[in-house]
Amino acid sequence: MSSNNNPASWQLNCPVSIPANAEYVTLAHGEGGRLSRKLIQEHILASLNNEYLIALNDAAQLPKIEGPLALTTDSFVVSPLFFPGGDIGSLAIFGTVNDLAVSGAKPLWLTLSLILEEGFPLAILDRILESIARAARETCIKIVAGDTKVVPRGVADGLFINTAGVGELITPIPPGPATLQVDDELIISGPIGRHGIAVLATREELGLEPLPLSDCGSLLQSVELLRSGIGNQVRCLRDATRGGVAAVLHEWAEASELTLSIEERNVPVSPEVRGVCELLGLDPLHMANEGTMVIAVKPGAGTAAVEILKSIPETATAQQIGIVKSRGIVPVTIRRTLDSEQPLDDPLGSPLPRIC
Amino acid sequence: MSSNNNPASWQLNCPVSIPANAEYVTLAHGEGGRLSRKLIQEHILASLNNEYLIALNDAAQLPKIEGPLALTTDSFVVSPLFFPGGDIGSLAIFGTVNDLAVSGAKPLWLTLSLILEEGFPLAILDRILESIARAARETCIKIVAGDTKVVPRGVADGLFINTAGVGELITPIPPGPATLQVDDELIISGPIGRHGIAVLATREELGLEPLPLSDCGSLLQSVELLRSGIGNQVRCLRDATRGGVAAVLHEWAEASELTLSIEERNVPVSPEVRGVCELLGLDPLHMANEGTMVIAVKPGAGTAAVEILKSIPETATAQQIGIVKSRGIVPVTIRRTLDSEQPLDDPLGSPLPRIC
Repeated sequence: MSSNNNPASWQLNCPVSIPANAEYVTLAHGEGGRLSRKLIQEHILASLNNEYLIALNDAAQLPKIEGPLALTTDSFVVSPLFFPGGDIGSLAIFGTVNDLAVSGAKPLWLTLSLILEEGFPLAILDRILESIARAARETCIKIVAGDTKVVPRGVADGLFINTAGVGELITPIPPGPATLQVDDELIISGPIGRHGIAVLATREELGLEPLPLSDCGSLLQSVELLRSGIGNQVRCLRDATRGGVAAVLHEWAEASELTLSIEERNVPVSPEVRGVCELLGLDPLHMANEGTMVIAVKPGAGTAAVEILKSIPETATAQQIGIVKSRGIVPVTIRRTLDSEQPLDDPLGSPLPRIC
Repeated sequence: MSSNNNPASWQLNCPVSIPANAEYVTLAHGEGGRLSRKLIQEHILASLNNEYLIALNDAAQLPKIEGPLALTTDSFVVSPLFFPGGDIGSLAIFGTVNDLAVSGAKPLWLTLSLILEEGFPLAILDRILESIARAARETCIKIVAGDTKVVPRGVADGLFINTAGVGELITPIPPGPATLQVDDELIISGPIGRHGIAVLATREELGLEPLPLSDCGSLLQSVELLRSGIGNQVRCLRDATRGGVAAVLHEWAEASELTLSIEERNVPVSPEVRGVCELLGLDPLHMANEGTMVIAVKPGAGTAAVEILKSIPETATAQQIGIVKSRGIVPVTIRRTLDSEQPLDDPLGSPLPRIC
């Protein structure tokens, strides 16, 4: 399926066994005629139906939103499609829900667009649609509009997904990284690097037992608790996806023109992630997360923020990891073990393509 | 670039010559680090900047909308990327704007997500971004959020685009095809099949001179004129994209449980489209359009609708093509030349994959 004789993305770690009489996606499924409608009705609506999607109009007609809006989009090209702790479907929903949540919005509606490769098994698509439906239920969002395209064998890798999300901004809206001040406190919501390592270990077949789990999940509840508890103390939040925590810190340093300084010993890293990173010479701070966020709060509010996060299981290991300082020579510093501060690299690219 | 030794999609009909020192997309451009930010700032923002996009947050923060909302999404995988009359960029904007327009909404904001293939020339990306910017200006919409992913060589075909669009529903909102009644009148806004034939002629290198032009363009003005002129008389509108006019008529027949009946001699078809269709045994009614819509209006309102459409150049050849009848044996009938009525096929798939 993929062009270089590797197993197709959907074969690796796929939990679905393909029966002998399996049905496969054909080009005609993407062309707007009867087979397109059959795919939509028997597969997509079967998993995702709701009062808006059922209309199957060119655009969903939705009720008025009272407040200002948030709008976001993400495409997902993760390889493999299934990884420990999630799959491309749950990733697509949680990724977009989290983008809305950390922007200060209550997620309401999502669009879902599939680019399928000719020959993709419909049984696997159904499994991914179930995963999408489960993640949507968990986060109380509705998928209200969609699109399906099919491309010939060899010009995709099984399945790419795009989601776009609309949310309602809820006061107080975090004012963003440009408002960071000296002595603001930096917090991480949980152990870092889990998604990147889960995908890497699966894709490279590292033979780890058990495979480390991705943190792929919703940040909605933790953001809501922070808002209701210390909403006016929060400067900014960001889920640390591609580029990891290091990329977030560098973006915030650039936006604020200050230096962000962290202590390595305060950054939670699971033993599995630490083990793989040491083995392969990777820095967990550069590894992707899909349900872990960096938070900046006003001076003195860090302890309260950590306590709020520790009250729910998803963020039970939240930690204060550093503070904001006046602009020094480098934008982001890290104190590793007992050494003095050193620069934390801004990842140029990533050690690992296609993690989301 | 594509897997089967055909020229890459971006080589075919590409108006950009690639200089010797050209820069190409690398995997690192998609990984959220410095190169991702460089791609966004030097290429994407350079073409598309506005007050919302510049914030580069996880989600755009947007003002409140007064009325109810419309939300839509589409992915674009057209091959080739450039065709006479448009390219994947203008197609992505007009496609989503038209979906909002025919749903009764004023298009406001779009998201833009790019899936790039490693090795894609940045000069071609810039050309497509300019085309996106031009189409956005023409339709007065803003691109407020985006995403960029890069996949390895051979697992995409140059560039796939996803757009999602948010609009404000404007009263009177067309009530939709389920409300169709006997004697309603069916109208087409212009000559049909132009987009499908333009893509086909380019991709198959049919050697036609001049190449037939796609109708790729905005339906916004024509929909607004219909709304302000005879808004309460309109039952439903639909841009006849994949599956062509035949697919729209079949969807409406299914939704209304009535029979839709058209006269072939009233359906406008350009000589170029007719020529190619006759040569290849294709039916223009099955060919895709990207700026042409079908409209159903209440009995007696067809003449006014056609007159309104004829007042602007984009829809100067609008025609009434048929009427709605009580449900007969088949859902859609056509009278060809002097013969009696015969069934119009519902396309199973399409004569032509990847036209949008």
